[in-house]
Amino acid sequence: MQAIVFDGNLKLQEVPRPSNSDEAIIKVSRVGICNTDIEIIQGYAGFNGILGHEFVGVVESAPNDDFVGERVVGEINAGCGVCDLCAGGDSRHCPNRTVLGIVNRSGAMAEYISLPVSNLLSVPESVSDEEAVFTEPLAAACEILEQIRVSPSHKVAVIGDGKLGLLIAQVLDTTGCNLTHIGKHANKLEITAQRGIPTLLVDEAKGRFDSDFDIVVEASGAGSGFKLAQEIVRPRGTIVMKSTIHGDVPFDAARIIVNEITLIGSRCGRFENALALLEQGKVDVKPLISKTFPLSDGVEAINYAQQSGIMKVQLTT
Amino acid sequence: MQAIVFDGNLKLQEVPRPSNSDEAIIKVSRVGICNTDIEIIQGYAGFNGILGHEFVGVVESAPNDDFVGERVVGEINAGCGVCDLCAGGDSRHCPNRTVLGIVNRSGAMAEYISLPVSNLLSVPESVSDEEAVFTEPLAAACEILEQIRVSPSHKVAVIGDGKLGLLIAQVLDTTGCNLTHIGKHANKLEITAQRGIPTLLVDEAKGRFDSDFDIVVEASGAGSGFKLAQEIVRPRGTIVMKSTIHGDVPFDAARIIVNEITLIGSRCGRFENALALLEQGKVDVKPLISKTFPLSDGVEAINYAQQSGIMKVQLTT
Repeated sequence: MQAIVFDGNLKLQEVPRPSNSDEAIIKVSRVGICNTDIEIIQGYAGFNGILGHEFVGVVESAPNDDFVGERVVGEINAGCGVCDLCAGGDSRHCPNRTVLGIVNRSGAMAEYISLPVSNLLSVPESVSDEEAVFTEPLAAACEILEQIRVSPSHKVAVIGDGKLGLLIAQVLDTTGCNLTHIGKHANKLEITAQRGIPTLLVDEAKGRFDSDFDIVVEASGAGSGFKLAQEIVRPRGTIVMKSTIHGDVPFDAARIIVNEITLIGSRCGRFENALALLEQGKVDVKPLISKTFPLSDGVEAINYAQQSGIMKVQLTT
Repeated sequence: MQAIVFDGNLKLQEVPRPSNSDEAIIKVSRVGICNTDIEIIQGYAGFNGILGHEFVGVVESAPNDDFVGERVVGEINAGCGVCDLCAGGDSRHCPNRTVLGIVNRSGAMAEYISLPVSNLLSVPESVSDEEAVFTEPLAAACEILEQIRVSPSHKVAVIGDGKLGLLIAQVLDTTGCNLTHIGKHANKLEITAQRGIPTLLVDEAKGRFDSDFDIVVEASGAGSGFKLAQEIVRPRGTIVMKSTIHGDVPFDAARIIVNEITLIGSRCGRFENALALLEQGKVDVKPLISKTFPLSDGVEAINYAQQSGIMKVQLTT
């Protein structure tokens, strides 16, 4: 079968179909290109193999015939199943986990993948393939609401108008909180503005805020975004760190301590919540899609996704 | 009256007695020297004036004669009384607050001080003056239990065997948690070991722990302590940042995010909790006292307090 492989170089390659009889074999319909994929080809995580972890597909075979013929998405972390964390139901933090297309597990930019049946979830009929591919990043956005309580009385800022920031702003808006979405790009903020969310360009935000946000979500992945978060959060407020920030991170330890700020790292989330939001139409992911390519043009698609201003790029098989 | 003043130089100086009729006037009996005092004479917080914020004394006069003749300690933050935070009962984070001997308010290394009546608390009879002086730092230790739940099933580490670390370890031990106190000095750890708390020298700790502590309290004030905290906390665990760390802080943002760590800054606490622990004898502060000087030898005392291995130094008036 065809697959997009990274082994130091990025290429379309003919590889064997997965044949693991302990897991479900899924025919991939559509796969999204994530910033993590781009970071991997820049050396992050030291991963070599088939890229891709945002997918939707149809189950072709599975132990006990579970899900066969169903349209599914899949949790990307596969735990060892035996450690304390897995036993406690938190395989997403299993130290020996494999991660689809990221850690020791072939990814979804291929015609077929294999995943444990326990990772699969059926996609509701009303959710299209192009929407379903957003389940994984949308679940990451939903994770915030699993970690902290956000209520209508909270003043909340989301910093960052990339794909994740746009999803997070929409997810937090479902709580009825007093939300401001801060970003660098008027055209991207327009997507959340269209949903009725107040937006602000970061240049306008500087010096404009008292430090009075109850909750600030840093989703820019930039040190400058994390710095702004520390500036605008109120004493005893919460900063949710949603985007991995590489390089030097401006961390004002004295301010965090004196103002008793809570900082929470936030990563992957449960797919159920994301599928429910998509089914209910509470989050609109379609404006985030910049372009769709066939899998055979995957290398070109990944290069295209790295261009300035490009949002979600998807591949079809 | 005599007072220990810092104005770029540290000196014993004759200054006017406080005469603020809106506040209580307190005759100071005993005052502690805190690391913050030492940081101030090294330039921290830009404070000039009478040093000192850990005190016990007797109220000489007050509006409405409240507390007159009583032995008291006093909360060190005095809010503006009108901002949203003060109105919400959190004057400790009032942006316009004064802080005894730290921000825009004369401190307690003097024969008399003035404080708002609302800052005062009576000292229970069974608590001696030398113990009562620990109310402020002990309250800071107690603040942790106001911010997070610590239960007997939690595996907890306290990093740092300075005065604050020794108080924190004793406070956390009251919860019945599975506690380890990690420090650099065998003679200091002996104080908590005597209380039945398991202790470990930091050199022995390295590489010895899995990342499985539910809660790690960083109280060393050193970057190396914060680094160790990040290494030994479990995924989804909590790091409480208790000591202000100056200079470069090793902040592993990627690890915090991927492991969904919660970081909480923690500072001053409510005096009621500290006084209750002292009254009940659940914390023993007396082994922390290295030496007591008369106020008139305050400059010598502060120099003495900066010597290696010296713990709490107190002044009597």
